[in-house]
Amino acid sequence: MSQAAQSQAFDDSDLTLRLAEYAMGLSLDDLPAETVEAARHCLMDWLGVTLAGSKEPLAKIMRDEAVEEGGNPQATILGGGGQTSALQAALVNGATGHALDYDDVNLTMIGHPTAAVAPAILALAEKNALSGKELLTALIAGIEIECRVGAMMNESHYNAGWHATGTVGTFGAAAGAAHLLGMDAEACARALGIAGTQAAGLKAMFGTMCKPFHAGKAAANGLYAAQLASRGFESRTDVLECEQGFADTQTTEYDPAAALAEMGTVFHTRNVLFKYHAACYGTHAAIEAASNLKRAHNIDPANVAEVEIGVRDTLLKMCNIQEPVTGLEGKFSLRFTTAMALLGENTGLIANYNVAKVQDAEIVELRDRIKVVNNQDMGKAGAAMKISMKDGSVHQISIDVETPEPDLKRQWSRLSDKFRDMAGPVIGGAKADRVVDMVAGLEIIGNVREFTRLCEG
Amino acid sequence: MSQAAQSQAFDDSDLTLRLAEYAMGLSLDDLPAETVEAARHCLMDWLGVTLAGSKEPLAKIMRDEAVEEGGNPQATILGGGGQTSALQAALVNGATGHALDYDDVNLTMIGHPTAAVAPAILALAEKNALSGKELLTALIAGIEIECRVGAMMNESHYNAGWHATGTVGTFGAAAGAAHLLGMDAEACARALGIAGTQAAGLKAMFGTMCKPFHAGKAAANGLYAAQLASRGFESRTDVLECEQGFADTQTTEYDPAAALAEMGTVFHTRNVLFKYHAACYGTHAAIEAASNLKRAHNIDPANVAEVEIGVRDTLLKMCNIQEPVTGLEGKFSLRFTTAMALLGENTGLIANYNVAKVQDAEIVELRDRIKVVNNQDMGKAGAAMKISMKDGSVHQISIDVETPEPDLKRQWSRLSDKFRDMAGPVIGGAKADRVVDMVAGLEIIGNVREFTRLCEG
Repeated sequence: MSQAAQSQAFDDSDLTLRLAEYAMGLSLDDLPAETVEAARHCLMDWLGVTLAGSKEPLAKIMRDEAVEEGGNPQATILGGGGQTSALQAALVNGATGHALDYDDVNLTMIGHPTAAVAPAILALAEKNALSGKELLTALIAGIEIECRVGAMMNESHYNAGWHATGTVGTFGAAAGAAHLLGMDAEACARALGIAGTQAAGLKAMFGTMCKPFHAGKAAANGLYAAQLASRGFESRTDVLECEQGFADTQTTEYDPAAALAEMGTVFHTRNVLFKYHAACYGTHAAIEAASNLKRAHNIDPANVAEVEIGVRDTLLKMCNIQEPVTGLEGKFSLRFTTAMALLGENTGLIANYNVAKVQDAEIVELRDRIKVVNNQDMGKAGAAMKISMKDGSVHQISIDVETPEPDLKRQWSRLSDKFRDMAGPVIGGAKADRVVDMVAGLEIIGNVREFTRLCEG
Repeated sequence: MSQAAQSQAFDDSDLTLRLAEYAMGLSLDDLPAETVEAARHCLMDWLGVTLAGSKEPLAKIMRDEAVEEGGNPQATILGGGGQTSALQAALVNGATGHALDYDDVNLTMIGHPTAAVAPAILALAEKNALSGKELLTALIAGIEIECRVGAMMNESHYNAGWHATGTVGTFGAAAGAAHLLGMDAEACARALGIAGTQAAGLKAMFGTMCKPFHAGKAAANGLYAAQLASRGFESRTDVLECEQGFADTQTTEYDPAAALAEMGTVFHTRNVLFKYHAACYGTHAAIEAASNLKRAHNIDPANVAEVEIGVRDTLLKMCNIQEPVTGLEGKFSLRFTTAMALLGENTGLIANYNVAKVQDAEIVELRDRIKVVNNQDMGKAGAAMKISMKDGSVHQISIDVETPEPDLKRQWSRLSDKFRDMAGPVIGGAKADRVVDMVAGLEIIGNVREFTRLCEG
């Protein structure tokens, strides 16, 4: 037991093995229908943002590099790029899927849960010609593990400078791949060890191509860990809890109880949140607050004296670029995105995050009347907004976007629309429709190649 | 400037860029002859231990995985395994070179300097058909950078649980590859950024295959960083010094002055130390102390009452496995290696670190009379030994193995012998002799393939 755990008097012995046993034992038939359905949404949404992301410069660079390296044709680089080795596909698709920062979010993980898991397991499933059912189960296994690891590491990990999508995501990718490989708990715990000692990703890189790159590395590193473990590669089986292990080195508030809480009853996959604005999730509450106030009070931006946005400290580190210069930086700017929303710009449109827009005179002028302050009463994805008008009137609202959509049919419908918007321009509307249908019936797909073939672009 | 730096009132602005500019500007013609000669020794010694390491189970696992993934035939997997992509070769050769833990050491880096750099640059030089001179210069560029980064991070990084060969080594591999690619300072700083956000490796994994794996990952990640940077991949150019960057997140005693000290006058490559015992470098002073006392006093182990080894805290974390069970664990056991030395066993023989030996009754019985204590008066690679005999007499000596060999001809001669011992069984004595000759005249080798061809095994 590590020192941190001893001080909490919680028995964390075999924590990694217990998580591994839990994840490897998950079976689609035993899982709540809502959890399975939520996983399906994760997969479709990720496929969509990955296809759209394939047009980004970072995806082109990584594809070119993959082509130069070569590899046996085992898995598809989505959106064009042909087939390459499973590891290369996981790497490129992983980075591509997070390139737009438009993929799903889990607040327990404090990261993007599907970003690292889906590319790893999709590449492996394609390589080994596995079924849709196997893929869906592995996705859940991966997300459950990474959310539990994220809960164990909690905000102190993120606040210390680590990008959980990269670090914690590596465990998710390894666990998902381990499930597809049919590992027992011991082998999975070794895979988690090999994964954990590769886990990396600095939050300081936000606003550069390295942010999405972290997701790709987490996917490839996690997949590689599982593949090595399946060949007998040795590792400790207690990387999470051991002295100077993952928790000891990378969080000051190690919480092993959170990792093991409510296993079998609470499924974090069900709590995944989806994005309908093409910016960092930390900006969404402010965007919705601004849209709400604008609509409710018919606000004319020209008459706004000052806007104050109150968010908790996590968000100040995450998405508070004061004067974004690139479109990517704009996605991490509460001031810019709020200005967009107040001006009635479409915050869901990827194309709206570009150099011209972040430097648009009207937006910049309004942006400079917006200030972001610390408000620890707000939740992880909440914002308190106060708009002071030039006439002295004040409008206020607090919004949080932490609660998963209760109506999964509504969610599927919104996500299907988003998927068509994302995938259509890359693979065409007809193929996009077919992918939606296939993911809707994923359990009867005998070989995942049936739908990856449609995503070649 | 980061908070840590401000408190030290040292101007660390552009630190990463300044290091990048320095490394990219290194030229073989301007370097001191002793530095160039030392780099030659690093390369030959690394080739030898990599060839010997190719027989280890970990190398076989990683080769099998590389074959399954495939890749364009750009670079050689040393010791058998044919040609694969440069990244795969860097990965496999990097892990293989550190598999025996018999490779060189630098105490400023607090790690194995050649372990990550050589596999990255050799693979890239082979892919691009570069010369021996270019290879040698890149090796120096890589080692200089990683030693300066290591100096900046210092013992607090290592003591916190990070394996510097994996973490700091990633920067060395990136800088070496950047030099081969002819990058300017800005591109190199981006490469260092992409490298730094991938840097990983937990010391908790010592004693498992993951330890050498860290070197392979550092090599491949560093090489990949340089390749991406050369294609225009974006990153911050201040990863070392920025807020929540590499230093902020992974050391509590950030020392930017050490990173920039005596540039152009002190070359860390000249201070590389070599191993003549096949165990962790932290055990070498104790081994030599034991051998010295045994020889000087004709000590019969049967008459030893107790042995006390005093080492600084770093070594207590590094190589103080009390009761090793595997041969690999034996390499990280001060008690086991000291017992071997007192019993006259050959500590230079790789084959002596095996399950039978660590469990040998006579060795275990003596080992259990040895205790390791903390002695902060000792240096980073020093040991104070006190042997109390059953007759009441006491023998004492303090040894450190921190000083580089002043006589480079003697060093070359010892390393050539070691190389032949390592490489001979894998590629045959004739080829081993030819490699020694080629490395001796590396500056006139037009294409590094001339000697990698001899190392195919």
